[in-house]
Amino acid sequence: MRVLRVDASARVDDSVTRRLADLMLEILGERVPDLSVVRREAAGMPFVDDAWVGANSTDPEARDSAQRWALAKSDELVSEVMAADVLVIATPIYNFGVPASLKAWVDQVARARLTFRDTEYGPEGLLTGKKAYVLVASGGTEVGSDIDFATPWLEFVLGFLGITDVEVIAADRGMLRGDSARQNAAEHVADVLERDWPALAEAS
Amino acid sequence: MRVLRVDASARVDDSVTRRLADLMLEILGERVPDLSVVRREAAGMPFVDDAWVGANSTDPEARDSAQRWALAKSDELVSEVMAADVLVIATPIYNFGVPASLKAWVDQVARARLTFRDTEYGPEGLLTGKKAYVLVASGGTEVGSDIDFATPWLEFVLGFLGITDVEVIAADRGMLRGDSARQNAAEHVADVLERDWPALAEAS
Repeated sequence: MRVLRVDASARVDDSVTRRLADLMLEILGERVPDLSVVRREAAGMPFVDDAWVGANSTDPEARDSAQRWALAKSDELVSEVMAADVLVIATPIYNFGVPASLKAWVDQVARARLTFRDTEYGPEGLLTGKKAYVLVASGGTEVGSDIDFATPWLEFVLGFLGITDVEVIAADRGMLRGDSARQNAAEHVADVLERDWPALAEAS
Repeated sequence: MRVLRVDASARVDDSVTRRLADLMLEILGERVPDLSVVRREAAGMPFVDDAWVGANSTDPEARDSAQRWALAKSDELVSEVMAADVLVIATPIYNFGVPASLKAWVDQVARARLTFRDTEYGPEGLLTGKKAYVLVASGGTEVGSDIDFATPWLEFVLGFLGITDVEVIAADRGMLRGDSARQNAAEHVADVLERDWPALAEAS
Protein backbone atom coordinates (compact mmCIF):
# COMPACT_ATOMS: atom_id res chain seq x y z
CA MET A 1 0.00 0.00 0.00
CA ARG A 2 1.38 3.41 -1.00
CA VAL A 3 0.94 6.43 1.22
CA LEU A 4 1.60 10.03 0.23
CA ARG A 5 2.20 12.18 3.28
CA VAL A 6 1.92 15.95 2.75
CA ASP A 7 3.11 18.18 5.58
CA ALA A 8 2.07 21.83 5.50
CA SER A 9 3.06 23.05 8.93
CA ALA A 10 5.62 25.84 8.90
CA ARG A 11 6.80 24.41 12.22
CA VAL A 12 9.44 21.75 11.91
CA ASP A 13 9.92 20.45 15.44
CA ASP A 14 7.02 21.70 17.47
CA SER A 15 4.20 20.75 15.10
CA VAL A 16 1.06 19.03 16.32
CA THR A 17 0.08 17.86 12.85
CA ARG A 18 3.52 16.39 12.16
CA ARG A 19 3.36 14.45 15.41
CA LEU A 20 -0.09 13.14 14.52
CA ALA A 21 1.10 12.14 11.06
CA ASP A 22 4.10 10.38 12.62
CA LEU A 23 1.72 8.45 14.87
CA MET A 24 -0.58 7.57 11.98
CA LEU A 25 2.25 6.20 9.87
CA GLU A 26 3.74 4.34 12.83
CA ILE A 27 0.44 2.51 13.41
CA LEU A 28 -0.08 1.90 9.69
CA GLY A 29 3.46 0.55 9.50
CA GLU A 30 2.63 -2.01 12.16
CA ARG A 31 -0.55 -3.13 10.38
CA VAL A 32 0.32 -2.96 6.73
CA PRO A 33 3.48 -4.95 5.93
CA ASP A 34 4.10 -3.67 2.42
CA LEU A 35 3.63 0.00 3.34
CA SER A 36 5.57 2.50 1.26
CA VAL A 37 5.54 6.17 2.20
CA VAL A 38 6.38 9.15 0.05
CA ARG A 39 6.84 12.38 2.00
CA ARG A 40 6.09 15.75 0.44
CA GLU A 41 6.79 19.03 2.18
CA ALA A 42 4.47 21.83 1.10
CA ALA A 43 7.11 24.36 2.16
CA GLY A 44 8.92 25.73 -0.88
CA MET A 45 6.07 24.74 -3.19
CA PRO A 46 6.08 26.98 -6.26
CA PHE A 47 3.10 29.15 -7.14
CA VAL A 48 1.45 28.62 -10.49
CA ASP A 49 2.71 31.43 -12.70
CA ASP A 50 2.08 32.90 -16.15
CA ALA A 51 4.14 30.23 -17.90
CA TRP A 52 2.38 27.47 -15.95
CA VAL A 53 -1.08 28.79 -16.82
CA GLY A 54 -0.17 29.18 -20.49
CA ALA A 55 1.32 25.70 -20.70
CA ASN A 56 -1.55 24.08 -18.85
CA SER A 57 -4.10 25.59 -21.20
CA THR A 58 -2.15 24.36 -24.22
CA ASP A 59 -3.00 20.98 -25.71
CA PRO A 60 -0.37 18.52 -24.35
CA GLU A 61 0.67 17.43 -27.85
CA ALA A 62 1.18 21.06 -28.88
CA ARG A 63 3.37 22.07 -25.91
CA ASP A 64 6.91 23.14 -26.67
CA SER A 65 9.88 22.27 -24.44
CA ALA A 66 9.58 25.48 -22.42
CA GLN A 67 5.93 24.66 -21.67
CA ARG A 68 6.78 21.09 -20.73
CA TRP A 69 9.43 22.48 -18.41
CA ALA A 70 6.91 24.91 -16.87
CA LEU A 71 4.73 21.95 -15.91
CA ALA A 72 7.48 19.50 -14.92
CA LYS A 73 7.16 20.06 -11.18
CA SER A 74 3.40 19.82 -11.41
CA ASP A 75 3.70 16.59 -13.39
CA GLU A 76 5.93 15.17 -10.66
CA LEU A 77 3.47 16.14 -7.92
CA VAL A 78 0.52 14.79 -9.92
CA SER A 79 2.23 11.44 -10.42
CA GLU A 80 2.87 11.22 -6.66
CA VAL A 81 -0.82 11.67 -5.96
CA MET A 82 -1.85 9.30 -8.75
CA ALA A 83 0.44 6.60 -7.36
CA ALA A 84 -0.88 6.88 -3.80
CA ASP A 85 -3.58 4.66 -2.32
CA VAL A 86 -3.81 6.77 0.82
CA LEU A 87 -3.10 10.45 1.40
CA VAL A 88 -2.17 11.77 4.82
CA ILE A 89 -2.45 15.57 4.72
CA ALA A 90 -1.14 17.22 7.87
CA THR A 91 -2.13 20.85 7.95
CA PRO A 92 -2.54 23.63 10.48
CA ILE A 93 -5.07 26.39 10.01
CA TYR A 94 -3.39 29.75 9.42
CA ASN A 95 -5.60 32.83 9.40
CA PHE A 96 -8.78 30.75 8.97
CA GLY A 97 -7.49 28.99 5.87
CA VAL A 98 -4.93 26.41 4.89
CA PRO A 99 -1.30 27.49 4.82
CA ALA A 100 -0.43 29.14 1.52
CA SER A 101 2.03 26.33 0.87
CA LEU A 102 -0.75 23.73 0.92
CA LYS A 103 -2.87 25.85 -1.41
CA ALA A 104 0.16 26.04 -3.69
CA TRP A 105 0.38 22.22 -3.64
CA VAL A 106 -3.30 21.91 -4.58
CA ASP A 107 -2.89 24.49 -7.35
CA GLN A 108 -0.06 22.33 -8.71
CA VAL A 109 -1.96 19.01 -8.61
CA ALA A 110 -5.32 20.27 -9.87
CA ARG A 111 -4.68 19.64 -13.55
CA ALA A 112 -7.31 19.48 -16.28
CA ARG A 113 -7.07 16.18 -18.23
CA LEU A 114 -4.90 14.59 -15.49
CA THR A 115 -6.63 14.89 -12.11
CA PHE A 116 -10.01 16.16 -13.28
CA ARG A 117 -11.76 16.57 -16.60
CA ASP A 118 -14.69 18.48 -17.95
CA THR A 119 -17.57 16.35 -19.23
CA GLU A 120 -20.95 17.24 -20.64
CA TYR A 121 -22.30 16.58 -17.15
CA GLY A 122 -19.78 18.91 -15.51
CA PRO A 123 -16.31 18.36 -14.07
CA GLU A 124 -15.28 14.83 -13.08
CA GLY A 125 -12.51 13.98 -10.62
CA LEU A 126 -10.00 11.43 -11.84
CA LEU A 127 -8.19 10.60 -8.58
CA THR A 128 -10.72 7.96 -7.62
CA GLY A 129 -10.31 4.95 -5.32
CA LYS A 130 -8.14 6.79 -2.78
CA LYS A 131 -8.57 7.50 0.92
CA ALA A 132 -7.46 10.80 2.48
CA TYR A 133 -6.85 11.44 6.16
CA VAL A 134 -6.69 15.16 6.91
CA LEU A 135 -4.99 15.95 10.21
CA VAL A 136 -5.86 19.51 11.17
CA ALA A 137 -4.58 21.63 14.04
CA SER A 138 -5.41 25.19 14.97
CA GLY A 139 -4.68 27.73 17.65
CA GLY A 140 -8.12 29.26 18.05
CA THR A 141 -10.22 28.29 15.04
CA GLU A 142 -12.73 25.56 15.72
CA VAL A 143 -12.68 22.99 12.92
CA GLY A 144 -16.06 22.84 11.21
CA SER A 145 -17.16 26.21 12.59
CA ASP A 146 -18.21 29.20 10.49
CA ILE A 147 -14.72 30.66 10.70
CA ASP A 148 -13.01 27.49 9.49
CA PHE A 149 -12.53 28.16 5.76
CA ALA A 150 -9.73 25.59 5.59
CA THR A 151 -11.39 22.23 6.16
CA PRO A 152 -14.51 22.76 4.04
CA TRP A 153 -12.39 24.00 1.14
CA LEU A 154 -9.92 21.11 1.41
CA GLU A 155 -12.70 18.51 1.56
CA PHE A 156 -14.42 20.14 -1.43
CA VAL A 157 -11.35 20.40 -3.63
CA LEU A 158 -10.23 16.84 -2.80
CA GLY A 159 -13.73 15.71 -3.78
CA PHE A 160 -13.53 17.77 -6.97
CA LEU A 161 -10.41 15.79 -7.83
CA GLY A 162 -12.20 12.50 -7.13
CA ILE A 163 -11.02 11.90 -3.56
CA THR A 164 -14.36 11.66 -1.82
CA ASP A 165 -13.37 9.32 1.03
CA VAL A 166 -11.93 12.01 3.30
CA GLU A 167 -11.57 11.74 7.07
CA VAL A 168 -10.82 14.86 9.08
CA ILE A 169 -9.07 14.41 12.42
CA ALA A 170 -8.97 17.65 14.34
CA ALA A 171 -6.61 18.83 17.02
CA ASP A 172 -8.21 22.26 17.09
CA ARG A 173 -8.17 25.24 19.43
CA GLY A 174 -4.82 24.24 20.93
CA MET A 175 -4.44 27.74 22.43
CA LEU A 176 -7.55 27.06 24.54
CA ARG A 177 -7.34 23.29 25.06
CA GLY A 178 -3.60 22.91 25.41
CA ASP A 179 -2.10 19.46 24.74
CA SER A 180 -5.48 17.75 25.21
CA ALA A 181 -6.31 18.89 21.68
CA ARG A 182 -3.42 16.78 20.36
CA GLN A 183 -4.09 13.89 22.76
CA ASN A 184 -7.74 13.63 21.73
CA ALA A 185 -6.73 13.72 18.10
CA ALA A 186 -4.16 11.00 18.75
CA GLU A 187 -6.89 8.81 20.21
CA HIS A 188 -9.04 9.61 17.17
CA VAL A 189 -6.18 8.52 14.89
CA ALA A 190 -5.91 5.21 16.75
CA ASP A 191 -9.67 4.62 16.59
CA VAL A 192 -9.87 5.41 12.89
CA LEU A 193 -7.01 3.08 12.01
CA GLU A 194 -8.49 0.35 14.21
CA ARG A 195 -11.65 0.67 12.14
CA ASP A 196 -10.05 1.04 8.69
CA TRP A 197 -7.15 -1.39 8.74
CA PRO A 198 -7.84 -4.37 11.04
CA ALA A 199 -8.61 -6.74 8.17
CA LEU A 200 -5.43 -5.86 6.34
CA ALA A 201 -3.40 -6.63 9.45
CA GLU A 202 -4.98 -10.12 9.71
CA ALA A 203 -4.93 -10.85 5.97
CA SER A 204 -1.23 -10.07 5.40
CA MET B 1 -4.94 59.46 -0.69
CA ARG B 2 -2.75 56.36 -0.61
CA VAL B 3 -3.74 53.23 -2.45
CA LEU B 4 -2.15 49.81 -2.03
CA ARG B 5 -2.79 47.66 -5.06
CA VAL B 6 -2.20 43.92 -4.61
CA ASP B 7 -2.20 41.78 -7.74
CA ALA B 8 -2.52 38.01 -7.32
CA SER B 9 -3.13 36.82 -10.84
CA ALA B 10 -0.48 34.47 -12.17
CA ARG B 11 -1.28 35.91 -15.60
CA VAL B 12 0.76 38.97 -16.48
CA ASP B 13 -0.72 40.17 -19.74
CA ASP B 14 -4.01 38.43 -20.20
CA SER B 15 -5.45 39.02 -16.72
CA VAL B 16 -9.02 40.20 -16.21
CA THR B 17 -8.36 41.34 -12.66
CA ARG B 18 -5.29 43.34 -13.64
CA ARG B 19 -7.27 45.10 -16.34
CA LEU B 20 -10.02 45.92 -13.87
CA ALA B 21 -7.48 47.22 -11.36
CA ASP B 22 -5.90 49.35 -14.10
CA LEU B 23 -9.32 50.80 -14.87
CA MET B 24 -10.07 51.46 -11.20
CA LEU B 25 -6.81 53.32 -10.66
CA GLU B 26 -7.21 55.25 -13.89
CA ILE B 27 -10.62 56.54 -12.75
CA LEU B 28 -9.37 57.21 -9.22
CA GLY B 29 -6.42 59.08 -10.71
CA GLU B 30 -8.80 61.39 -12.54
CA ARG B 31 -10.85 62.10 -9.43
CA VAL B 32 -8.31 62.20 -6.66
CA PRO B 33 -5.48 64.64 -7.39
CA ASP B 34 -3.08 63.61 -4.64
CA LEU B 35 -3.39 59.91 -5.36
CA SER B 36 -0.34 57.80 -4.57
CA VAL B 37 -0.29 54.13 -5.51
CA VAL B 38 1.93 51.39 -4.13
CA ARG B 39 1.88 48.21 -6.18
CA ARG B 40 2.48 44.83 -4.56
CA GLU B 41 2.74 41.62 -6.56
CA ALA B 42 1.67 38.56 -4.61
CA ALA B 43 3.81 36.40 -6.91
CA GLY B 44 7.05 35.45 -5.17
CA MET B 45 5.54 36.09 -1.74
CA PRO B 46 7.36 33.99 0.87
CA PHE B 47 5.52 31.44 2.99
CA VAL B 48 5.63 31.85 6.74
CA ASP B 49 8.20 29.33 7.96
CA ASP B 50 9.54 27.93 11.22
CA ALA B 51 11.76 30.94 11.87
CA TRP B 52 8.87 33.33 11.11
CA VAL B 53 6.50 31.54 13.49
CA GLY B 54 9.11 31.42 16.24
CA ALA B 55 9.99 35.10 15.85
CA ASN B 56 6.37 36.19 15.66
CA SER B 57 5.51 34.40 18.89
CA THR B 58 8.48 36.02 20.65
CA ASP B 59 7.96 39.30 22.47
CA PRO B 60 9.21 42.08 20.15
CA GLU B 61 11.63 43.44 22.75
CA ALA B 62 13.10 39.98 23.25
CA ARG B 63 13.72 39.19 19.57
CA ASP B 64 17.31 38.69 18.48
CA SER B 65 18.67 39.91 15.15
CA ALA B 66 17.89 36.62 13.39
CA GLN B 67 14.28 36.85 14.52
CA ARG B 68 14.02 40.47 13.43
CA TRP B 69 15.41 39.41 10.06
CA ALA B 70 12.86 36.57 9.84
CA LEU B 71 10.06 39.13 10.15
CA ALA B 72 11.61 41.93 8.08
CA LYS B 73 9.61 41.18 4.91
CA SER B 74 6.41 40.86 6.94
CA ASP B 75 7.16 44.17 8.66
CA GLU B 76 7.57 45.81 5.23
CA LEU B 77 4.27 44.37 3.99
CA VAL B 78 2.49 45.34 7.20
CA SER B 79 3.69 48.93 6.96
CA GLU B 80 2.42 49.09 3.35
CA VAL B 81 -1.04 48.07 4.50
CA MET B 82 -0.96 50.36 7.51
CA ALA B 83 -0.04 53.33 5.30
CA ALA B 84 -2.84 52.71 2.81
CA ASP B 85 -6.21 54.46 2.89
CA VAL B 86 -7.60 52.21 0.17
CA LEU B 87 -6.70 48.65 -0.82
CA VAL B 88 -7.36 47.35 -4.30
CA ILE B 89 -6.98 43.56 -4.23
CA ALA B 90 -7.13 42.01 -7.68
CA THR B 91 -7.48 38.25 -7.41
CA PRO B 92 -8.63 35.37 -9.54
CA ILE B 93 -10.18 32.28 -8.00
CA TYR B 94 -7.95 29.25 -8.42
CA ASN B 95 -9.38 25.86 -7.47
CA PHE B 96 -12.23 27.47 -5.49
CA GLY B 97 -9.88 29.51 -3.32
CA VAL B 98 -7.60 32.48 -3.59
CA PRO B 99 -4.27 31.95 -5.33
CA ALA B 100 -1.67 30.58 -2.90
CA SER B 101 0.34 33.76 -3.41
CA LEU B 102 -2.48 35.91 -2.02
CA LYS B 103 -2.87 33.58 0.96
CA ALA B 104 0.86 33.93 1.50
CA TRP B 105 0.46 37.74 1.50
CA VAL B 106 -2.33 37.53 4.10
CA ASP B 107 -0.26 35.15 6.22
CA GLN B 108 2.52 37.77 6.14
CA VAL B 109 0.35 40.76 7.08
CA ALA B 110 -1.77 39.06 9.75
CA ARG B 111 0.45 39.91 12.70
CA ALA B 112 -0.54 39.79 16.37
CA ARG B 113 0.11 43.16 18.08
CA LEU B 114 0.44 44.95 14.70
CA THR B 115 -2.64 44.27 12.57
CA PHE B 116 -4.81 42.56 15.17
CA ARG B 117 -4.66 42.02 18.89
CA ASP B 118 -6.27 39.76 21.42
CA THR B 119 -8.46 41.47 23.98
CA GLU B 120 -10.58 40.14 26.82
CA TYR B 121 -13.52 40.45 24.43
CA GLY B 122 -11.79 38.45 21.70
CA PRO B 123 -9.55 39.47 18.80
CA GLU B 124 -9.67 43.07 17.57
CA GLY B 125 -8.58 44.23 14.11
CA LEU B 126 -6.19 47.18 14.07
CA LEU B 127 -6.31 48.14 10.37
CA THR B 128 -9.36 50.35 10.83
CA GLY B 129 -10.54 53.27 8.74
CA LYS B 130 -9.61 51.70 5.41
CA LYS B 131 -11.66 50.77 2.34
CA ALA B 132 -10.95 47.62 0.31
CA TYR B 133 -12.10 46.92 -3.22
CA VAL B 134 -11.76 43.24 -4.10
CA LEU B 135 -11.77 42.59 -7.83
CA VAL B 136 -12.45 38.90 -8.40
CA ALA B 137 -12.41 36.89 -11.60
CA SER B 138 -13.04 33.22 -12.16
CA GLY B 139 -13.30 30.71 -14.96
CA GLY B 140 -16.26 28.68 -13.72
CA THR B 141 -16.77 29.44 -10.03
CA GLU B 142 -19.68 31.73 -9.31
CA VAL B 143 -18.66 34.39 -6.78
CA GLY B 144 -20.79 34.10 -3.67
CA SER B 145 -21.90 30.55 -4.47
CA ASP B 146 -21.34 27.52 -2.22
CA ILE B 147 -18.20 26.60 -4.14
CA ASP B 148 -16.64 30.04 -3.77
CA PHE B 149 -14.32 29.61 -0.78
CA ALA B 150 -12.21 32.55 -1.87
CA THR B 151 -14.43 35.60 -1.44
CA PRO B 152 -16.02 34.69 1.90
CA TRP B 153 -12.60 33.90 3.38
CA LEU B 154 -11.03 37.11 2.05
CA GLU B 155 -13.89 39.26 3.36
CA PHE B 156 -13.71 37.51 6.74
CA VAL B 157 -9.95 37.79 7.18
CA LEU B 158 -9.92 41.45 6.06
CA GLY B 159 -12.65 42.07 8.63
CA PHE B 160 -10.64 40.18 11.25
CA LEU B 161 -7.80 42.65 10.58
CA GLY B 162 -10.20 45.61 10.96
CA ILE B 163 -10.97 46.25 7.28
CA THR B 164 -14.73 45.90 7.36
CA ASP B 165 -15.60 48.24 4.48
CA VAL B 166 -15.04 45.71 1.71
CA GLU B 167 -16.58 45.88 -1.75
CA VAL B 168 -16.41 42.83 -4.01
CA ILE B 169 -16.58 43.43 -7.74
CA ALA B 170 -16.92 40.15 -9.60
CA ALA B 171 -16.02 39.23 -13.14
CA ASP B 172 -16.91 35.60 -12.55
CA ARG B 173 -17.54 32.57 -14.75
CA GLY B 174 -15.52 34.01 -17.62
CA MET B 175 -15.40 30.54 -19.26
CA LEU B 176 -19.20 30.67 -19.59
CA ARG B 177 -19.82 34.41 -20.00
CA GLY B 178 -16.83 35.31 -22.09
CA ASP B 179 -15.72 38.98 -22.08
CA SER B 180 -19.12 40.13 -20.81
CA ALA B 181 -17.96 39.04 -17.36
CA ARG B 182 -15.17 41.60 -17.51
CA GLN B 183 -17.31 44.27 -19.20
CA ASN B 184 -20.02 44.01 -16.53
CA ALA B 185 -17.38 44.21 -13.84
CA ALA B 186 -15.88 47.27 -15.53
CA GLU B 187 -19.28 48.97 -15.42
CA HIS B 188 -19.56 47.97 -11.76
CA VAL B 189 -16.16 49.58 -11.10
CA ALA B 190 -17.30 52.81 -12.72
CA ASP B 191 -20.56 52.83 -10.76
CA VAL B 192 -18.84 52.16 -7.46
CA LEU B 193 -16.29 54.93 -7.97
CA GLU B 194 -19.02 57.31 -9.07
CA ARG B 195 -20.72 56.62 -5.77
CA ASP B 196 -17.61 56.63 -3.53
CA TRP B 197 -15.53 59.45 -4.89
CA PRO B 198 -17.69 62.18 -6.48
CA ALA B 199 -17.32 64.56 -3.53
CA LEU B 200 -13.54 64.24 -3.55
CA ALA B 201 -13.45 65.17 -7.25
CA GLU B 202 -15.43 68.36 -6.61
CA ALA B 203 -13.74 69.26 -3.34
CA SER B 204 -10.16 69.02 -4.67
